[in-house]
Amino acid sequence: MKSKPFLIIGGGGHGAALAEILIKQKKNIVGVVAPELTAGHILFQGMDHFLNDDDILKFRPEDILLVNGIGSMPYKSLREDVYNQFKKQGYKFATVIADSALVSDYSILECGVQVMNNCVVNVGCKVGENTIINTSTSIDHDCIIGAHCHLAPGTTLSGQVVIEKNVHVATGVNVINNVIIGHNTIVGVGANITKSIPSNSIVYGARSVIKGLGITHDC
Amino acid sequence: MKSKPFLIIGGGGHGAALAEILIKQKKNIVGVVAPELTAGHILFQGMDHFLNDDDILKFRPEDILLVNGIGSMPYKSLREDVYNQFKKQGYKFATVIADSALVSDYSILECGVQVMNNCVVNVGCKVGENTIINTSTSIDHDCIIGAHCHLAPGTTLSGQVVIEKNVHVATGVNVINNVIIGHNTIVGVGANITKSIPSNSIVYGARSVIKGLGITHDC
Amino acid sequence: MKSKPFLIIGGGGHGAALAEILIKQKKNIVGVVAPELTAGHILFQGMDHFLNDDDILKFRPEDILLVNGIGSMPYKSLREDVYNQFKKQGYKFATVIADSALVSDYSILECGVQVMNNCVVNVGCKVGENTIINTSTSIDHDCIIGAHCHLAPGTTLSGQVVIEKNVHVATGVNVINNVIIGHNTIVGVGANITKSIPSNSIVYGARSVIKGLGITHDC
Repeated sequence: MKSKPFLIIGGGGHGAALAEILIKQKKNIVGVVAPELTAGHILFQGMDHFLNDDDILKFRPEDILLVNGIGSMPYKSLREDVYNQFKKQGYKFATVIADSALVSDYSILECGVQVMNNCVVNVGCKVGENTIINTSTSIDHDCIIGAHCHLAPGTTLSGQVVIEKNVHVATGVNVINNVIIGHNTIVGVGANITKSIPSNSIVYGARSVIKGLGITHDC
Repeated sequence: MKSKPFLIIGGGGHGAALAEILIKQKKNIVGVVAPELTAGHILFQGMDHFLNDDDILKFRPEDILLVNGIGSMPYKSLREDVYNQFKKQGYKFATVIADSALVSDYSILECGVQVMNNCVVNVGCKVGENTIINTSTSIDHDCIIGAHCHLAPGTTLSGQVVIEKNVHVATGVNVINNVIIGHNTIVGVGANITKSIPSNSIVYGARSVIKGLGITHDC
Repeated sequence: MKSKPFLIIGGGGHGAALAEILIKQKKNIVGVVAPELTAGHILFQGMDHFLNDDDILKFRPEDILLVNGIGSMPYKSLREDVYNQFKKQGYKFATVIADSALVSDYSILECGVQVMNNCVVNVGCKVGENTIINTSTSIDHDCIIGAHCHLAPGTTLSGQVVIEKNVHVATGVNVINNVIIGHNTIVGVGANITKSIPSNSIVYGARSVIKGLGITHDC
């Protein structure tokens, strides 16, 4: 049985990265929906370009799979809003797993989960709907990740970590085993998490210090 | 020549992760030895389940390869004790390399080394017996790692790093080139190592700071 | 059309890592140029060993591709000097991409770029000449990296990061999206970069703290 055609929502970097993953898998992409394309121009070139979210309604829910190409940023709910709006109208969001990612046969990904290049999701995990497992993220055995989360590139979770819904984990965060991170939390870039975090928290990782060199190296 | 059958000791997350790696390689797993299974239940389902370490003695050392599925935790010697006990009785521990890992043809892994998913071991390395190179760990050229170490997920070693025996390197640690980490040392999560560390040390990485959001975002 | 033979300059760890990547790709390596071999001895064994840079001149520029196997260290310009010297004399440096690395079809690598094992270069990136993308580095969509940079092992760049020329990014650095790092900057091991960095800076990541255990664990 052939897979349904894909319609990508979002014409920025995340949408482009998803498009390339789907192109490699020879999926049928019917178009991209975005007010303007801000990345991946060559890649989107051959596709139909729809300007408004309402254009999605031209397709019947049973005829296509949506791909949520809107990036996830802290304090911004656009990605989640779009997901919920079209889900309510009966549309389904594709679960996308890059060929270069490794997802255990004994883990469960809900609808709309996106596992980007070079990720690992090890045995016994569960990932909630619309969550992004971004590039080179490593999730070890028996982790439970809620819906609408973003694990930014280079995140490392040890075993049995629980991340509740709507959590934003920034680039390069490390989490030891058996930790729970409560919902609506934002974990800052490169933070090292060694104990559980209450819901609605902001966690700051270590700052770096900039010093001027004071020399003007000729180049 | 067919490989000997494998017997996994340990029915938790690490044992389950090893089991999936071996199942993918179509290895013959004769069973799992554990007082109880705490993870990977579906995965262990088809296998014989032995409750006591003494059950291992029902198999002759020349007939099987043991797989040390006991996880490695700081201050706990169970993994090493089990290894030494059965090695003394003539048993051999399998060296396990995940299909998704890349180990240089010019590196040497001793008995019982486990290289988990998405790891790299580059040219000129040597890794001592019973050491775990855990998920998404990257070891660059000419590193020497001692026996009974654990490099937790997401560890990055630059070139020519020496890690002596019994060292626990926690999740997401970064080590620059030409550094020596002495035996029995524990390196904490996400620590950045820029100089050599004496034996029997504890190294703390940077702490993160948690702040409450003070708002109750509706979701 | 068969590719030209390769001549590796540098007989240390970086040269050896490059040699193994090329051997796996069944490239024709005509030799290694180095005053002495300090790594990868078994690997270099079958190759011709030239002692002086002048030996390169025995080959005509149109007959070979050079591979810059000199490692990149902060404050040392040898790698760049050798590149510029032989480029001026009409030689071409090979762009090397490890089989285990993933480079987007929609990204551009200039001459002499080296993408080592397990790296990702996502859609829409551009990488300048002679830059090293070292082991397990992850570069997300739409990043622009200048010439003569070194992204050391385990670097993670989010989307739309700009790194100007001659920047040294040490092991395990994390950079959030939309940041610019000015030329001639050195970013220290594991630094978390959340804002743009002026040119000619040194950035220090978080220090780790070593404590003696005070016990002498018997092993």
